[in-house]
Amino acid sequence: MIQWILIMVPAVGALALVYALIRSGWIIKQDPGEKEMVEISRHIREGAMAFLVREYRVLSLFVVVVAILLILSNSGILRLVALSFITGALASALAGFIGMRVATAANVRTTQAAKTSLAKALVIAFSGGSVMGLSVVGLGLLGLGSLFWAYVRYLGSDPVTIQQTVLPILSGFSLGASSIALFARVGGGIYTKAADVGADLVGKVEAGIPEDDPRNPAVIADNVGDNVGDVAGMGADLFESYVGSIIGAMVLGATVSVGGGFSGGFVMLPLVLAAVGILVSLVAVFMVRGSEKIKPQTALNISEYGAAILMIILSWFIITRVLPSGTFDSGRMAGLSASGVFIATLFGILAGTLIGLITEYFTSDSKSPAKRVADAASSGSATNIISGLSMGMKSTALPIIVLAGTIMMAYHFAGLYGIAVAALGMLTTIGVQLSVDAFGPIADNAGGIAEMAGLKKSVRKRTDALDAVGNTTAAIGKGFAVGSAALTALALFNAYKTTAGIDQIDLTEPRIMAGLLIGGMLPFLFTSLAMQAVGDAAFSMITEVRRQFREIKGLMAGEAKADFKRCVDISTKAAIRKMVLPGLLAVGVPVLVGFYDPYMLAGVLAGTTVTGVLMAIFMANAGGVWDNAKKYIENGHLGGKGGDAHKASVVGDTVGDPFKDTAGPSLNILIKLMSVVSLVIAPIIT
Amino acid sequence: MIQWILIMVPAVGALALVYALIRSGWIIKQDPGEKEMVEISRHIREGAMAFLVREYRVLSLFVVVVAILLILSNSGILRLVALSFITGALASALAGFIGMRVATAANVRTTQAAKTSLAKALVIAFSGGSVMGLSVVGLGLLGLGSLFWAYVRYLGSDPVTIQQTVLPILSGFSLGASSIALFARVGGGIYTKAADVGADLVGKVEAGIPEDDPRNPAVIADNVGDNVGDVAGMGADLFESYVGSIIGAMVLGATVSVGGGFSGGFVMLPLVLAAVGILVSLVAVFMVRGSEKIKPQTALNISEYGAAILMIILSWFIITRVLPSGTFDSGRMAGLSASGVFIATLFGILAGTLIGLITEYFTSDSKSPAKRVADAASSGSATNIISGLSMGMKSTALPIIVLAGTIMMAYHFAGLYGIAVAALGMLTTIGVQLSVDAFGPIADNAGGIAEMAGLKKSVRKRTDALDAVGNTTAAIGKGFAVGSAALTALALFNAYKTTAGIDQIDLTEPRIMAGLLIGGMLPFLFTSLAMQAVGDAAFSMITEVRRQFREIKGLMAGEAKADFKRCVDISTKAAIRKMVLPGLLAVGVPVLVGFYDPYMLAGVLAGTTVTGVLMAIFMANAGGVWDNAKKYIENGHLGGKGGDAHKASVVGDTVGDPFKDTAGPSLNILIKLMSVVSLVIAPIIT
Repeated sequence: MIQWILIMVPAVGALALVYALIRSGWIIKQDPGEKEMVEISRHIREGAMAFLVREYRVLSLFVVVVAILLILSNSGILRLVALSFITGALASALAGFIGMRVATAANVRTTQAAKTSLAKALVIAFSGGSVMGLSVVGLGLLGLGSLFWAYVRYLGSDPVTIQQTVLPILSGFSLGASSIALFARVGGGIYTKAADVGADLVGKVEAGIPEDDPRNPAVIADNVGDNVGDVAGMGADLFESYVGSIIGAMVLGATVSVGGGFSGGFVMLPLVLAAVGILVSLVAVFMVRGSEKIKPQTALNISEYGAAILMIILSWFIITRVLPSGTFDSGRMAGLSASGVFIATLFGILAGTLIGLITEYFTSDSKSPAKRVADAASSGSATNIISGLSMGMKSTALPIIVLAGTIMMAYHFAGLYGIAVAALGMLTTIGVQLSVDAFGPIADNAGGIAEMAGLKKSVRKRTDALDAVGNTTAAIGKGFAVGSAALTALALFNAYKTTAGIDQIDLTEPRIMAGLLIGGMLPFLFTSLAMQAVGDAAFSMITEVRRQFREIKGLMAGEAKADFKRCVDISTKAAIRKMVLPGLLAVGVPVLVGFYDPYMLAGVLAGTTVTGVLMAIFMANAGGVWDNAKKYIENGHLGGKGGDAHKASVVGDTVGDPFKDTAGPSLNILIKLMSVVSLVIAPIIT
Repeated sequence: MIQWILIMVPAVGALALVYALIRSGWIIKQDPGEKEMVEISRHIREGAMAFLVREYRVLSLFVVVVAILLILSNSGILRLVALSFITGALASALAGFIGMRVATAANVRTTQAAKTSLAKALVIAFSGGSVMGLSVVGLGLLGLGSLFWAYVRYLGSDPVTIQQTVLPILSGFSLGASSIALFARVGGGIYTKAADVGADLVGKVEAGIPEDDPRNPAVIADNVGDNVGDVAGMGADLFESYVGSIIGAMVLGATVSVGGGFSGGFVMLPLVLAAVGILVSLVAVFMVRGSEKIKPQTALNISEYGAAILMIILSWFIITRVLPSGTFDSGRMAGLSASGVFIATLFGILAGTLIGLITEYFTSDSKSPAKRVADAASSGSATNIISGLSMGMKSTALPIIVLAGTIMMAYHFAGLYGIAVAALGMLTTIGVQLSVDAFGPIADNAGGIAEMAGLKKSVRKRTDALDAVGNTTAAIGKGFAVGSAALTALALFNAYKTTAGIDQIDLTEPRIMAGLLIGGMLPFLFTSLAMQAVGDAAFSMITEVRRQFREIKGLMAGEAKADFKRCVDISTKAAIRKMVLPGLLAVGVPVLVGFYDPYMLAGVLAGTTVTGVLMAIFMANAGGVWDNAKKYIENGHLGGKGGDAHKASVVGDTVGDPFKDTAGPSLNILIKLMSVVSLVIAPIIT
């Protein structure tokens, strides 16, 4: 059976890519609309591609340097890690590239379809998202599956080789994926928020022109930002989560002991679950059919929840068949059984959903937190900021309790392996989740193009309707992202401990405590660098937009054209330059500390995981609540648009932008990247 | 010698109180000025006393309930803990009360003296501060010393009794001090910031009248706030730090092993160092003489640095004489010597000073961080907020590295005992430090009275000059507060581990990891509650001030009087009501978790310490940098007062107020209070 699985896994990955290819061909064939729309869409695409090319150029340099360092090391394992690392980095970059190509083609076609039909527009936008979603999982499983197959075939499939050679080498794939993801998230996040802040503060607030108005010089940069941040950045992010959770579970699977020995089933299970998850995602994606009778939200819900339920049912059969039927030991837990692993998976899915619902409560514009923040806006910007910060901090409490409970339950039912599998459980149907997530920025862009091309209001109304759906599903997606990040980081942390041969990490040892403090500080420093980068870039953008309004005569009257390119250029340069330091910090610190003292590194990882998860939840939700407090006011409450409360709420929303779209999501990657780096260097620092 | 020390310690405490009594008598004899000044000062004093009375009423209830719970417990030790607890709570409350009585007498007399002489005003304001400073240390040492003497006398002085009975019972004193401190800091912090925000936002920004203008209805509440927050709140805070660091070192001193046995010297050393510290502080306080030839800043510097240097020299002689001359073991470190303890003390003082200097760099209005935040204000409130948050986060990096290094060095030279002694080292001369700190709000109040009484500009100028001095020393004081809090929490955490009989706390155990996450979350939840309280109270205050400006005819023209009392009442009620929940959280969580699983509690304490220290530094420095960015602009840069950049900077400053004066300092207490609660319940949860 093992042989059969080894080949089936990459084959399913390839199948997902075939779907992506066919579907993107279909999208290209759709009508892109009249010349002006095509022109605008070309600007967006060119800006996005220009950024991606420059970003990848810098990242190639990084990948080459790291690969050379790995090859120069004296360790035979690390040389092969270099191969996995390059493959992982390439696959991640490719996923981002494909996602963005198709998103920048789907946006204008969605606009065109929205001229006549909401259902048609939904299908095009969702198809764009699904190409992204299935490319991510397809590349992930194809890359991971082929490498695993090749390593097992050429290095050996005996337990010792798998534990001590194959899996450490395979971790390099995750290292590649995580480092690209971190740079892409930070870079994309800086790009999109600098453009957004610039466009909003000068265009909307100072000049008083609407969102996406073609007179606004930053408007193209803003739409490019949606693609490089929300599509390419998010794609790389989820590619990393997916790969990280699979590898984390595989590595811990190798430490499971069955009757004192090793069982391949525990190592294979994550790959099998992932492969079946892709098949389920494919079915779910096909279920989204354009029909005027079904609301877009309902269509997406049926697809996403249907996939989750189908996956849960299938998981039971897979887990009980792939794992041995007797009992096993994992971590300090003994006498566990396959059904325990299934329960741990359920706890993972339950936790992700709960965290998502809590997220939705704390950020939705129809719930009391957003209303309270909006109320605070009525006494000024300062009280609005205080209230949003406070709400974001408060929103960490329940998710953390859910996470802590999940860790203990998953461990109780399936040991350390259970924690890793719980994380994986949240991500198996990520193919369809990501399709829904990537759908958002495509619809957003479609609306932007409608506005810039001066189309009828009914078109914008349809794209706005599309943009509004999937917000709840996006919140749940965020819950899964945070939850799986925390559990995966924990699984990788345990894998590090095992691989580094560390017996126990006593919290009261000063070096562990010192490590905990330093590790805890890193997310603060990292966030600071990311926020400052957005602040600086936004500052340049604001200055430039103000300059254009002042110096280009006839711009406000619509008689002269704005110089979009300069704004695109400012965002691009700032993002590329400022993504480097935070990225190097994440990679460099574990290496430095690890060579100094592997025990202290364990403290650092734990510290980073704790404050990283907290800061990620805090920043995402504070950003979300400010955003929706503003929307609440814009819907006519507290004086509505243009009133004093609205002005104050715009300040909150602007502060929230780098919180929720730059620093927050990057932290999820940071905690995993640091764990993966540690795991990779573990064999040589002990 | 032990007997002699046992009596000398409380005697020195009493001596400090005698000084405070004599000096406050002298202050009362000074001229309080004309009728109007006396009247204003009476309003402030009455407001402050009314708050204190109501606060203490609530706290009495809390103290009585906790004491009853302790007495009802089945443990003989906990019944005596109740006695220590009540004594500690009373001493803390008394210190706050004395400090505030004298501060509200010294303020108006400082104003009066400032009519003629800066030197005279300095002496009165500093005398007021020194009464506070020496009351705090005097009450601390008198209480702790007498209890220790009594317990040793009536319970026994053999090693086992001291380790297992006397010291656990004595910890109750710290529990009393810490819980009062937390309530006082949070309550005082909410009071002062609600009033401040209300007075600033409506008075200064909306109505455009100057600071401390008598037409502003919130002006008395604002001045009351300086007293209840910066004097009473800070006094209780430092009383807690002082007592906590002494007890932490005593408890760890009892675990030191000398040739396999116990040595009383390690338990007595903290008390002796504290007693000598008081004597040094008395000398230093006498050194501040009013002279027109010496600048106020220089006078304070000579006093404070002189005290520190004298104390370091004396420490060498004390440590080498009180400790046995051979080697000892502490924690996992063996073969340590008395000189190692001295080195650990030095590292503590060095770390505190370094953290203070870093704090000063990140917040001073003449350094680049404040200038950068000010620059960001020139593109609006949002970029100013982003920049300040980012600067605050960045400022955590170096202090955390210093702390981590200190922990490792102190441990290297003197084991776990070294960490406790390093914390104590920073606080031995707290008598004089606190005199300087309490001097600030007195000078601030004096300026407010000058303004409200309509005195000549030269008076206000002199009080402003006084207010400006001591800012650097205050920054260093903050460094000592954060540094000693972290080290003391660590020492108490280790004491908890020993007392609870926990062998090792392995980070990779799920219950520890879950505890770490929950503990890490608590400072976020706590901060959220404190910030929301300030936000809500400020909102009520803003509404009330706006109402008075609108409804009281002739108020702006100076023809009608504002209704100060309603504003005082709003702050008082909000502060009392909202201080309860955060306080109960700090006390309740360790009890709940501890009874569920003492190991998990260890994780919780470590998590709270890590994020608590980080958040404390972040919030203090973000608040500080916003404050000074505003001052920098007010000094004529970037358009100066009234310009757009200034308006944006006021928003930052307002957000920073609850950061630096409510949540930030409370976190220092939170981490220690939770450790002390755990230490006290340790004997009964295992």
